[in-house]
Amino acid sequence: MTAPDFGPPTELPARTGTAIRMRPGDRIRITNTHGSQVVDTWAVSANDPSEVLSMEHTRRVTGHLHPVTGDHMLSNRRTPMLALVEDSFPGTHDTIVACCDPWLYAHLGCAPGHANCRDNFIAALAEQGLHADTAPNPLNLWMNVPVEGNSVTVTAPLSRPGDHVTFRALCDLFLVLSTCPMDVPPGSGAAPINGADCTPMPVHYAVAR
Amino acid sequence: MTAPDFGPPTELPARTGTAIRMRPGDRIRITNTHGSQVVDTWAVSANDPSEVLSMEHTRRVTGHLHPVTGDHMLSNRRTPMLALVEDSFPGTHDTIVACCDPWLYAHLGCAPGHANCRDNFIAALAEQGLHADTAPNPLNLWMNVPVEGNSVTVTAPLSRPGDHVTFRALCDLFLVLSTCPMDVPPGSGAAPINGADCTPMPVHYAVAR
Repeated sequence: MTAPDFGPPTELPARTGTAIRMRPGDRIRITNTHGSQVVDTWAVSANDPSEVLSMEHTRRVTGHLHPVTGDHMLSNRRTPMLALVEDSFPGTHDTIVACCDPWLYAHLGCAPGHANCRDNFIAALAEQGLHADTAPNPLNLWMNVPVEGNSVTVTAPLSRPGDHVTFRALCDLFLVLSTCPMDVPPGSGAAPINGADCTPMPVHYAVAR
Repeated sequence: MTAPDFGPPTELPARTGTAIRMRPGDRIRITNTHGSQVVDTWAVSANDPSEVLSMEHTRRVTGHLHPVTGDHMLSNRRTPMLALVEDSFPGTHDTIVACCDPWLYAHLGCAPGHANCRDNFIAALAEQGLHADTAPNPLNLWMNVPVEGNSVTVTAPLSRPGDHVTFRALCDLFLVLSTCPMDVPPGSGAAPINGADCTPMPVHYAVAR
């Protein structure tokens, strides 16, 4: 088995989303270039957009709250969609909390129009001709959400510049990524999701087909 | 403040679902009559069925993995939908794993047509004239899903005959209940979700308007 031949890295700018077509066997490596950026991640079947990567199905079958290397992540019809094949980060990737959305930023007192992961998801799919009116529970790469007993807290990432994960596609899908736009200072009731400086940053991804 | 005047209890037979219209301030008490029955629970906005009770939004805002008395549970647009106002059970109600569905029973080797919570959800809404093509992550009343570190296990309930919970509606909604039909013996790879005897049972509910 040879190492996958990744193409050149593509920048995903801060606060934006994209949908990447992947066919079975394709791999994608996502790199947290600056270390502090959370990347909300979804998968949507290329054949039927009502079939989506499901955290609740995946947790039930893997028996893991957070995915670990080797896990196969399932759709809401229990179809294997993504394998987590490599992860340089010793911490966890969150599966517990929703993505940011217009209602969160309204609650935090932001003016209408603040970029958000939910709208990024919907817009990225729309560019591929797919309609969605809501965003599933994402896999929140590098998002630091400690669970202790019944307590769930949201705090700054522990990831490092250059940390990366690699997924292999197990079916024909669109992988959707959003560089989380959260930039509201914690004093406003927000959590420092993208690090203590609350500054969204670009990340990079590369695909091996 | 007087105690709510609950109407007579209605039986929800084993393996079935129902959708109950609730307006703001209405209360519903759900009783685990035999103690061993898991009840998958959802809420859907009466005004827009794309707005649904969201475990991932609720966990983020309450800071609780499992809801506790006093929690307000939110929709996928962060609208308060349900308040958990009373709970006789000292354990937890699961928010981590998906409901059972046709693909789970196929995986377990059951013949097509096995009753399941996903189809109960869709059918209960259809009886109210509402369309759904997927089931959100439910609140799984009395389902025993211990989370320890990164480990998620599914095992038999610890609830007792007569344990009950009460929710108050915070908006105009349909509450959807499904008495989980899981009856596959653990030797087949299933979990004893409805107790060691794997026998789905009826529950009862009563509404105070």
